Order: sequence, then C-alpha cells, then structure tokens
Amino acid sequence: MTATEIRDPAGWLARLRRRRALRERAGLGRTLRSRDPTENVLDLAGNDYLGLTRDPRVLSAAAEALTMYGAGAGGSRLVRGSTRLHAQLEQAVAHLLGQPAALVFSSGYLANLAAVAGVVGPGTVIVRDAHVHASLIDACRLTGAQTEVAAHADVTDLAAKLEKFSARPLVVVTESVFSVDGDLAPLREVHALCRRFGAILVVDDAHAVGILGPDGGGAVRAAGLADEPDVVVTATLSKAFGAAGGIVAGPTDFIDHLMQTARPFIYDTALPPAITAAAHAALGIIRHSPELRDSVRRRAATAAEFLRSQGLTVVRTPAAGILAVAAPTAEAAVQWAAACHAEQVAVGCFRPPSTPDPISRLRLTVNARLSEEDFAAAVRVVVATAPAGRVSSRRHVPGSDED
Amino acid sequence: MTATEIRDPAGWLARLRRRRALRERAGLGRTLRSRDPTENVLDLAGNDYLGLTRDPRVLSAAAEALTMYGAGAGGSRLVRGSTRLHAQLEQAVAHLLGQPAALVFSSGYLANLAAVAGVVGPGTVIVRDAHVHASLIDACRLTGAQTEVAAHADVTDLAAKLEKFSARPLVVVTESVFSVDGDLAPLREVHALCRRFGAILVVDDAHAVGILGPDGGGAVRAAGLADEPDVVVTATLSKAFGAAGGIVAGPTDFIDHLMQTARPFIYDTALPPAITAAAHAALGIIRHSPELRDSVRRRAATAAEFLRSQGLTVVRTPAAGILAVAAPTAEAAVQWAAACHAEQVAVGCFRPPSTPDPISRLRLTVNARLSEEDFAAAVRVVVATAPAGRVSSRRHVPGSDED
Repeated sequence: MTATEIRDPAGWLARLRRRRALRERAGLGRTLRSRDPTENVLDLAGNDYLGLTRDPRVLSAAAEALTMYGAGAGGSRLVRGSTRLHAQLEQAVAHLLGQPAALVFSSGYLANLAAVAGVVGPGTVIVRDAHVHASLIDACRLTGAQTEVAAHADVTDLAAKLEKFSARPLVVVTESVFSVDGDLAPLREVHALCRRFGAILVVDDAHAVGILGPDGGGAVRAAGLADEPDVVVTATLSKAFGAAGGIVAGPTDFIDHLMQTARPFIYDTALPPAITAAAHAALGIIRHSPELRDSVRRRAATAAEFLRSQGLTVVRTPAAGILAVAAPTAEAAVQWAAACHAEQVAVGCFRPPSTPDPISRLRLTVNARLSEEDFAAAVRVVVATAPAGRVSSRRHVPGSDED
Repeated sequence: MTATEIRDPAGWLARLRRRRALRERAGLGRTLRSRDPTENVLDLAGNDYLGLTRDPRVLSAAAEALTMYGAGAGGSRLVRGSTRLHAQLEQAVAHLLGQPAALVFSSGYLANLAAVAGVVGPGTVIVRDAHVHASLIDACRLTGAQTEVAAHADVTDLAAKLEKFSARPLVVVTESVFSVDGDLAPLREVHALCRRFGAILVVDDAHAVGILGPDGGGAVRAAGLADEPDVVVTATLSKAFGAAGGIVAGPTDFIDHLMQTARPFIYDTALPPAITAAAHAALGIIRHSPELRDSVRRRAATAAEFLRSQGLTVVRTPAAGILAVAAPTAEAAVQWAAACHAEQVAVGCFRPPSTPDPISRLRLTVNARLSEEDFAAAVRVVVATAPAGRVSSRRHVPGSDED
C-alpha cells in the first residue's frame, strides 16, 4: 500500500477538529457573537472612535454614491477606470496626513502588504516592533526579506538591530498607536534612528488618524514627521473614518510606484464608491471636530486612571482611544467579556495569539458618540464584572507601564 | 565615512524613478484613467458580468443596510459582533455553491490568502497552475510552503508533480475560469488526480460563480465537485455579484477552522453591512436569472468566433464572460486600448507582469446589461481599431488554443 492509497480525503478535517479541541481546552476557542443593530449595547469593542459610521452626513454621501455608481466598483481601478471619488479621497487623505500623495486600498490589511512590499528591495533587512499588527507581520513575511524583531517600543534594542545590519538596506516597521494596548510608539526617536542608519520607516497610523495630531492628521503628523522622504504611513478607513478600506501615504514617487507595481492594488477590485464617499465625508467631519477627537483621548485616559484606581491592571497608558486590561487567564477573559455583555456592554476579548504576550486582556475602545454617562457606566460594568480578587495582584504583564 | 553616513534619505525614491523610467521605455507604464459615472462608455473592461451592480434591488438592499447599520462594520466580526447580514450571506453562498459552509472576507485577495494558509500544514507541497491569479501566488508565498508550478491546465504535468512529492502532504491550487484568458481548468481531471494523491484542491471560482453551473453555482458545482471533503472553493462578491468582498466555501470543519484561525479574517474589519446586503440581493437575482447567465457565456463565445474570423488571435476559448485578444507588443496593446476608449469602448489592457506569458493582450469581458446591439458594436470597435496587419500573423501565443 502506498502513502497515497492510505490517505483519507477527509483525514485533514479530523486533524482540524483535533486542533479545535486543543484550543477549546486551553480556553482559546473563538465564537461569532451575533450583533443586532437594534440592540441597546454600549460599544467598548469597535473602532468607530468618533461615532461617524452612523453620521447622517456620512450616510448621505454613501447613499448618493451608491445611486450614482452602483454597489461595487466593477473591477480594479487600472482596468475598470478610476472614479473621481477615489481620487478626491486620496487627495484629502494626503492633505490630512500632511503627505504628498496617498493611494486607497480595499482594506488596511492589503494597504500594509503593499506598503511593506513597496519599500523592500534586494538584501533589505526589516526590523519590526514586537507588537505590530498581524497584517504587518504578514506583510514582512510576504516580502521574503530577513525580518528582525525589536523589543516593543525599545529604541535601544532598535538601535542595536539597525547597527548590526547597517551595511544592508534597512526598513523599520511599527505602529504609532498599538492596536491591542493602545500605547504610542516613540516615533521621533524611531525616526531619528532610521535617519541615522538610512532606514525607511513604515508607520501604521490606523488607530491614530482621526484622533491624534493637527486636524486629526495622525501620530506621524503630530510627531512632525509628515512629508519626510524616508517615512511611509499606512492607515485604515474603517476606524475613525467609520467606513472601510486602507490607505498608504508618502512621497509622490513612492505612491506612484505602488500604483504601478503593488499587487494588492493592481489585482484587487477597488473600494466600493459608496464606501469611498463615506470615508471622504467622514474626513471632512474629522477635520472640523476637535471636540470629538479630544473626547476620545480624554475618555481613554480617564478610564485608565479609574480602572487602575479600582485595582485593575491597565497594561499601558492609552494614547488615543484604546486601552487594555489584563485578565488572569484566557478563560477568565472570556467569562469577563461575557459578563460585560450580559450587562449590555460590548468589549473586546483578546487572547493568544491575538496578544503580543501570553496575557489575555479585555480591550476597551472609546466611541465618542456614547454619552459621558453611558461611557462611565460601561466602564463601571467592566470593574463590577472583573474576576474576583482583582488582577494586578495576581498577574504581572511583562514590559508593561507598571514595571 | 560609513555606509550609513552616505545614505540619502530620498535616495530610494531616485531608484523608484529609475525603475519607472525603465518600465515606461518598455511600454509597461500604468496610468489611472478617469471614469465618469455619466459617461456613455460601453463596458468590456469590468467584471460586473450580470450588470447587477446598478440593479435597483441590489441598490435598495444596500441602502437599507446602510441606514440600519451605518457605513462601516466598526471592527472585526469576532470583536465587534457578527451581523445577521453576514451570516445570511454566508448561508446563501454556501447553498448556491453546494458547499456545507462559507465565510465572508473583505476582499477576494484576503479570502485566497486565508484559504491557502488554511489547507497548508507542516511539510506541505503546493502545486499551483502556472496561470493562477496574483492573490493565489501571494497566498502560496505567504505560507512559506514549497510551491511547484504545473504547466497551465496540463494534467500530465500536474500528475508528474504530484507523483514526485507523493510522500508529502499535497495541496493543488487552481482557478476554474482563469482571470486573464477566460479558459476553464479541467476540474474533474484535476480533482481525480488530487484524490489519487491525497491532495487538497483549492479552486478560485471567482469568474465562474454567478455564470456557470446550476443556479449560477460556479464551475466547481458544475463539475460535480461541490461538497467533496477535499475541495475548497474561493470566490469574490465583486464580479457577478456586483458588490465587493471575498468568500471561502467548503467543509464545515474547515470553515470553522478559518473563523478560528485565519489571520485575514480575525485581524480585518468585516465587509461593510451595505455591501454584504448588496451581495446577498444579487445572489437572489443570480439564482433566478438563467437568461442573464446564458447571455454572458453566449456573447463571449460569439465574440471569440467573430474576432477570430476577423483574423485576430483570441488566446483561448472562453468558458464564461472573459476573453483575451493578443496584441503584437505592449505599446500596441496600450494604443489599441486607447483607440477603443476613444470610440467609447472600455477594454482591459493586460501587459506583463499581469499576463501569464510575455504576450500583451486586450481583455474583453461581457456585461449582460449591455444590449445585444451595443455589445456587438463594441466588439466591432475592437476589430476596427486593431493594429494594422492583424495579430495572428505576427504573434504566436505559446500554449494557446491555436497551437
């Protein structure tokens, strides 16, 4: 009997079931919780930071584009033609971010794949922060370039890694506001190192654009790094913009290079016109709503302070609209999140491998459209449902602010 | 002076400009042509095969979901909650494709990354068809698995490759209807080989779902391979469905595995509810519109015949709504496409590296909403603007139907 004859065509599915059972036993199973648009849930889970996804101006822009262009883009922009809506959004995003040019992608994931591939050449060594988003990790992998991991937000380690490979073309990849813990990378120091070692800096500004910086232009602009020739910014249109899609912004030659060569741009159907129009409308609101942006940052900071005062471990000091609270175990995190939800509060439950370390967390996000009272009440629910004995006394998060 | 001191932070941009100049000189530069929604252009470029992107039922479903849910999904489905619209679409897609289960992604690109990663395990060898889409090539790369390329639609070569690695876990990756030339893979033979060698078969059915098979259930269903335990199907919602997004369909344990582990699902904002609703509405129309589906296939076949009768080289016999016509050079393809556009006919212009060989092509697609007269007129424009002396006499496409 040969190897092929004994293969059961359904055998691989049995292996998947065994892996599922293993995850379940470790408290790492995932389930899709149903979300009802009419439910009366306080949202501390989503990324609609400014509450713009239901803003009437955003909806009306989307509805108009829907009527004018249809539901889909009908093809890639290079093959099917590029709409005025896409070009206008790109101009507006570039202006907001203080960058010479920008290109829209159908998701932030694809924008990251394109941005990293676009800066990597023969012999490049990538040095990435240990906490970057899965899409950036995949982006590094996909290039095939040698990739080194620098300790999180650790400029000394970053310098050592860059020094070690200083004879090679270098790329540094980081987020500005990190997606799980909400802390801010030391962007100015990181860029100074990039300049010293001739590295190109790629910053995923997804959780900062719309929240930080002048006009909500993001953390890169806030750090004075907009329009630097060695800085590339990526972001999403699905968070503060309340829509969907991704963007890459940077030097005009680089953005042209992506339009000409980036596989996730060339070989992908364009972002739907209605969603493009929604993002553009949101951008206009963001620029003129400093109070909304301030509210997100202030609420996150206040909540972190309160949670700490109640004995909970807020992993890092929030810089924008995200904060994470440590849970004693993966199972406890799931139960905690379920208890919150039973009290009509939606929270994110992050367990390995979605966390940068073995510590499970609740991730809380701010939605500025919640009233101050509702937000405060939601945070009190998180405290009231916390695992008995609190967490900071039981569980130390390595490398956290509380070190 | 060290290597780092001589690096100019804008030096990499000069390199990009030099690469751009090289592409331009080879006739391989790309430009974004603007597309006006009010323009009176006959569309032989897009993938809105059934003309559903502007169907009033599709638009009304999208508009309703827009009002109910907002412009964006607000986060990933695992973190922010999963809407009824996504679940209903998944059920309907699975049913249409004759598969036990399906999962929606925010793009077909990401669906392909997830599907291939999901079937690859330690030691897997992937054998992919030479003509598969860029997203499948990237999907194979991203897994890090050893990847072998089988000659296009060549079951003998595929068998040899599978035999060579028969001691290893095997995955075969193909499209059903190929995206550039529109020909159909020999799916039954490919699957028989997969069964013989214990390989899992991944089929990208993007250009066949909605066009081929019972109810428009795609080429995999048409080949009698729906619901096989060793077959995984991917597709997009941006082509016949007229919307955007991607799907993976297959055995329930596999789809659950993707929901639990697929990085482009877990770490990506969900497809916007309005787009999800649009796709679902389109699916309902597709099932009950055999005449639309027939029209696409018939028009493509008739056009291929006519173009050949006029001395043009139709690269392969179209199986659904795509056909490709060879051009003598890349520059000639660009000029030909521009000449068509000057006559108000939009066509795809495919040049290396977007072609599976060095031959540049016009790619023509069928949109069933064009009248018979307009479609015939558009095809006549392609003939009338063809490079002087025709093409078949000058340019042989290796491996084409005309070999």
